[in-house]
Amino acid sequence: MLLPLQGSEVFTARRRRLAARMGPVPAALFAGDLSPRNYAANIYPYRSHSHFLYLTGVHWPGAVLLGEGDEWEIFATPPAPDDALWIGPSPSWEQLAAAIGVQAIRPLGDLQDAVMASGGTAAVATLPAVQPRSRACQAALLGRPWGLHDDGHHGAPVLEGPDAELAEAMIALRLVHDQAALELLRSSVEIARVGHLAGMAATTPGARESVVRAAIEREFTARGCAPAYGSIVSVHGEVLHNEHSHHTMAAGDLLLVDAGADFHGWASDITRTWPVSGQFSPTQRALYDIVLQANLDAIERVRPGARYRDIHLTACRTLCQGLVDVGILRGEVDSLVERGAHALFFPHGVGHLLGLDVHDMEDLGDRAGYAPGRTRSRQFGLGYLRLDRDLEAGMVVTIEPGLYLVPAILNDPALTGPFDRDGTLDRERLAAFADVRGIRIEDDVRCTEDAPEVLSAAIPKTADAVAKLVGTA
Amino acid sequence: MLLPLQGSEVFTARRRRLAARMGPVPAALFAGDLSPRNYAANIYPYRSHSHFLYLTGVHWPGAVLLGEGDEWEIFATPPAPDDALWIGPSPSWEQLAAAIGVQAIRPLGDLQDAVMASGGTAAVATLPAVQPRSRACQAALLGRPWGLHDDGHHGAPVLEGPDAELAEAMIALRLVHDQAALELLRSSVEIARVGHLAGMAATTPGARESVVRAAIEREFTARGCAPAYGSIVSVHGEVLHNEHSHHTMAAGDLLLVDAGADFHGWASDITRTWPVSGQFSPTQRALYDIVLQANLDAIERVRPGARYRDIHLTACRTLCQGLVDVGILRGEVDSLVERGAHALFFPHGVGHLLGLDVHDMEDLGDRAGYAPGRTRSRQFGLGYLRLDRDLEAGMVVTIEPGLYLVPAILNDPALTGPFDRDGTLDRERLAAFADVRGIRIEDDVRCTEDAPEVLSAAIPKTADAVAKLVGTA
Repeated sequence: MLLPLQGSEVFTARRRRLAARMGPVPAALFAGDLSPRNYAANIYPYRSHSHFLYLTGVHWPGAVLLGEGDEWEIFATPPAPDDALWIGPSPSWEQLAAAIGVQAIRPLGDLQDAVMASGGTAAVATLPAVQPRSRACQAALLGRPWGLHDDGHHGAPVLEGPDAELAEAMIALRLVHDQAALELLRSSVEIARVGHLAGMAATTPGARESVVRAAIEREFTARGCAPAYGSIVSVHGEVLHNEHSHHTMAAGDLLLVDAGADFHGWASDITRTWPVSGQFSPTQRALYDIVLQANLDAIERVRPGARYRDIHLTACRTLCQGLVDVGILRGEVDSLVERGAHALFFPHGVGHLLGLDVHDMEDLGDRAGYAPGRTRSRQFGLGYLRLDRDLEAGMVVTIEPGLYLVPAILNDPALTGPFDRDGTLDRERLAAFADVRGIRIEDDVRCTEDAPEVLSAAIPKTADAVAKLVGTA
Repeated sequence: MLLPLQGSEVFTARRRRLAARMGPVPAALFAGDLSPRNYAANIYPYRSHSHFLYLTGVHWPGAVLLGEGDEWEIFATPPAPDDALWIGPSPSWEQLAAAIGVQAIRPLGDLQDAVMASGGTAAVATLPAVQPRSRACQAALLGRPWGLHDDGHHGAPVLEGPDAELAEAMIALRLVHDQAALELLRSSVEIARVGHLAGMAATTPGARESVVRAAIEREFTARGCAPAYGSIVSVHGEVLHNEHSHHTMAAGDLLLVDAGADFHGWASDITRTWPVSGQFSPTQRALYDIVLQANLDAIERVRPGARYRDIHLTACRTLCQGLVDVGILRGEVDSLVERGAHALFFPHGVGHLLGLDVHDMEDLGDRAGYAPGRTRSRQFGLGYLRLDRDLEAGMVVTIEPGLYLVPAILNDPALTGPFDRDGTLDRERLAAFADVRGIRIEDDVRCTEDAPEVLSAAIPKTADAVAKLVGTA
């Protein structure tokens, strides 16, 4: 157990703001349990559930935060007698209570009584833990028969009554990052910067993709960070969630790297794409510059009141315009976007919320990403958009347009048929771009009252700047 | 999904040997599900449960192997329509069935009927999955009311009837490594070697421990491996399961590094201890050489028929002799060991089984580590010994003696009282060794009909050899 990196006032203020939104409703936040890898004692690196972490700053397996107003307590498993031998000295519960700013830390066995004293299980608001075992214990303790959404919430639990209120209150808080959050997000992005530069430097034809991944993650590990998500390091950028890095990099390949750090729980999420040889081919360069323009155009629109879906559509228009300019698509841009022609080459959304989670608060399904009354489109491409809110100052979002030549799309008549039949898609011209498989350029952007702040601005992204850094290790 | 690294004959032979031991009893092995990190889609790196992996060679979330004799099938979730878009092309089920050597691969929805056709839920033997959710599904499907041991099996499930038979059959197989297993274990150790050398080279006073950890794990990642367990990289080697690497290394510190790779599921487990400055102090050198002698003496006894507990006690004797020689303990070695005096400085066991799991088959509690009729000692120190079998040719074990100055032990009158009172422990002399906090030297050793084979022999371990490698990066 380590003390929180930041002062108790950070967590006290967050709990106070939560309580102000909740009124006289007690809330219980569960940190979640250890996850076994191949047997109980060989665990994955532990991370508290983000809601608990937001309000306490500590990674504490099995702990539960319970309280309302200014009165909060943590319930936790008391240290075992031989803990000092196996895991060394830990801060005392008194030290932890002071560092987190809670009234007391009590044995987990007291939790049930404390819940009853707070008005009973039905009166206490909670958010489901993410680990199945923790969730089951929590559901049993609090008498919650959580069902799962079968709609656009992607398997998220159905929340009702005080749980739904708590979800809305947490979302309202976590959507707009306070100074303490921003400080850690900036550090996380800075570590990602160092990683990406190391990855560019380590790229060399004939090596395996995993060599670049190793160079990047080394910088994370050296700074005490885990990757915030499975790093994507692949010459097959057209495989959108490519988890493999075992291919050999060839001189003519583009390498797509989507990697970010988890710094004390806060995520960065950065993508850059660079030529393995340090030199773009003319076709690679042409599409790269289109993606870059889409990235810049979308970022420019990140401002309070902007609807995120419109920012997505801005990127789609720039991409379509570029594809028309190079002759891959034919037609009028607005009409191409309306028909979803861009999605043949840009099937995903332009970004998502960023915070403690790389897709922030996705444990609540689309409740955080979609404003009340908005739901996912059924159109191919737009349906993958994870965020459709009107932006507010203080939100941090990713902006990550891309262009991909995905066989599973381009060989699917159900998707390409309309565009093949009317000549929108020029397949002959497209064939000239076969050395482009996938390009994405992703930045982390803070919405402010003034111009958008690109947190990842220090990570080079023009074709010339990126190419110059390749292979310099 | 990747095809197995090794040929189908490897897995066919293992399933045949399992079936020969089981007789006409069908068995169902569960790969286990994905484990969420902070939300459902952000998962930890997946690894099949080791029993499933041993018989199939693939990491396949949610898959189930069912069969008997030469007839085996895998039940799995059919690919989703948009898998090709998000995770790229995968081998077909036909290709997978051929590569694994099973008769067929069928949709998971068919499993219940297949179990009924195999004689019903009670007739099918199984081993509990490790992920709580998978285990709950499995228990429901097969009607298993698994309780948990509250004895020395450390929370392992109570197995009865065909499940217990299957456990014994799997243990018999996995205790003695076949050629295919040995090949991967050797590769895993070789990757650990490269990692340890990189760690030694990267060690420099003033840097954080995590810098060394990063240098080691970089070599793992570059070769497509995860760490087989949370790497221990610490100047506080006296904290036995130290998971933190945030301390700054000082010139006078020893750095203890316990790190191994997971190579296609197979674990290495190596510890070396080196001086941060590249130079041992005389007191550090004196205790280092005692640990090294204990390591060599114990390894020499790894041969068929040797009882592992005796090998542990051999190491204890060498350690006691050394502590007497340097004046920290007083008395006659055999009597010191009998009284457990060594455990004040060497509280853990001298090693454990090694294979797919770093503590091989620990998911079955002590069933694999302890021969029938043997149970854990209640003596402090000996009670932590994870292995007490008579060795057989083909087994691989770790040999990992150490010496630690653990405040939680040395300040505990319940543990030190008897040795303080009769003058066995010379605290004044001990105080001279304050610059030693923890030393461990761990090798991976194969029992053969001839001399023991030290798989990790290529990793330097004499004080001079190790010191020469420090700080050379």
